[in-house]
Amino acid sequence: MFTKYLQDAFKVPLVIQLTDDEKCMWKNISVEESQRLARENAKDIIACGFDVTRTFIFSDFDYVGGAFYKNMVKVAKCVTYNKVVGIFGFTGEDHIGKVSFPPVQAVPSFPSSFPHLFNGKDHLRCLIPCAIDQDPYFRMTRDVAPRLGYHKPALIESSFFPALQGDTGKMSASDPNSAIYVTDSAKDIKDKINRYAFTGGQDTKEKQRLYGANLEVDIPVKYLSFFLEDDDELEHIKTEYGSGRMLTFDVKKRLTEILVEIVERHRRARAAVTDEMVDAFMAVRPLPSMFS
Amino acid sequence: MFTKYLQDAFKVPLVIQLTDDEKCMWKNISVEESQRLARENAKDIIACGFDVTRTFIFSDFDYVGGAFYKNMVKVAKCVTYNKVVGIFGFTGEDHIGKVSFPPVQAVPSFPSSFPHLFNGKDHLRCLIPCAIDQDPYFRMTRDVAPRLGYHKPALIESSFFPALQGDTGKMSASDPNSAIYVTDSAKDIKDKINRYAFTGGQDTKEKQRLYGANLEVDIPVKYLSFFLEDDDELEHIKTEYGSGRMLTFDVKKRLTEILVEIVERHRRARAAVTDEMVDAFMAVRPLPSMFS
Repeated sequence: MFTKYLQDAFKVPLVIQLTDDEKCMWKNISVEESQRLARENAKDIIACGFDVTRTFIFSDFDYVGGAFYKNMVKVAKCVTYNKVVGIFGFTGEDHIGKVSFPPVQAVPSFPSSFPHLFNGKDHLRCLIPCAIDQDPYFRMTRDVAPRLGYHKPALIESSFFPALQGDTGKMSASDPNSAIYVTDSAKDIKDKINRYAFTGGQDTKEKQRLYGANLEVDIPVKYLSFFLEDDDELEHIKTEYGSGRMLTFDVKKRLTEILVEIVERHRRARAAVTDEMVDAFMAVRPLPSMFS
Repeated sequence: MFTKYLQDAFKVPLVIQLTDDEKCMWKNISVEESQRLARENAKDIIACGFDVTRTFIFSDFDYVGGAFYKNMVKVAKCVTYNKVVGIFGFTGEDHIGKVSFPPVQAVPSFPSSFPHLFNGKDHLRCLIPCAIDQDPYFRMTRDVAPRLGYHKPALIESSFFPALQGDTGKMSASDPNSAIYVTDSAKDIKDKINRYAFTGGQDTKEKQRLYGANLEVDIPVKYLSFFLEDDDELEHIKTEYGSGRMLTFDVKKRLTEILVEIVERHRRARAAVTDEMVDAFMAVRPLPSMFS
């Protein structure tokens, strides 16, 4: 959603890498299943509303080769095994696919990896919006870039949502109650928030009126700070809830409304994404409106 | 020359891998120069007389991707870092390009790496004629193949020519007098053999007549055993030279004749190889006469 905002605001070309090879190597799933998951992932991404005339989505299994592979080799030459052990913590028992992977994630930072998009425009600057856990790859990339005569990519890194259970839990795919999924029904969302969202509110209505909620640990408030677009309303909720005039029940209710709406909207948008649209976003092609 | 013999004798499809990425990573030369050298290399190979209707030559920089890359990932998943250290002796100061490379050399063993040639014919057996120094790559490949459901490749490995100086020297690109090159002139060849070829013959004509030559260490005799097609003549030379009836001068003269002829023939054949022919051998295409 943030990346879509950037594309809309700056009218920039956008390249989205789906690292199906990484998934295949780390999760020990087959090449075919990784490719299937990548296409499913592409549908979720497309549902965010990206502009097909400015967006190239690719999967590594489809696209690695040619100029991209040449850049992989150039990057790999600049990074020692000791270096990747320092960055990623590999051990000798890890397979060499893991050791080989960092250059694959590094090279989309460089325009020359996409001759069909940026032919000869090596001076273009690259901005990478990503989650903070991807930082090690791009610290490595920024370290290497000048030695290849390339610009360093710039990054905007997002933090993760806390787990629904707050510090007492951990957001994990193995615990479906640790997070709200875009595939959850309205009832799932309501149940998860009511049952599992860690609250800074008091045990009883009376104590809440008396002491107010601890906003620092309250997960519904944290989630609202991500999802509630209206800053005035957010401030109002924080004031009322923190002082005890608002109850946990009402904060959870408001969060549920907002999340149900976002998830429903996403579900509708995703249902409208056809295989032909996925093919269109993933076609290796020039982007007509790229520099307009 | 041996590989051409096999193709002629068995009418088999032949795939030749030019590892320009390896050269770029090990010799620290640029991608562009590695690619240029690969094409020069292809001309020498084509000059051996391969059948363009049965031969696909590719360079890694051109061809890595798609089904080939998927097999690289599958192989990489089966090989730990400790394993490649055991096989290839990498250290932590080696760059990760070296660690990433063994799967690149492994996967041409598998028909599924070449869908345009062997689409669906995964049962085909692969025979790899190569020099013995390449054995570690294919020991690794044979180890991994069954775990991927693939056949192990079979190998016929050639030994190296000894250096012209025999055990007192080492064949090396840094010493132009250690070997005969296919680019040497007739005069170069004659001079190299007369001046540098280590001989088992005696210092003087008289001693040679008396004691004969030590064939075990004699480089001209070793080279003749590679290049002289006529086995009877080879035996005759060994007998006469070993017993002292033939002089070093005459053995060197015969070797010079033979090598000059081979090199001249190669030079003529190579001069006839056009860029269009290289393109034809390296085009990604089905091979029409593959299964005739």
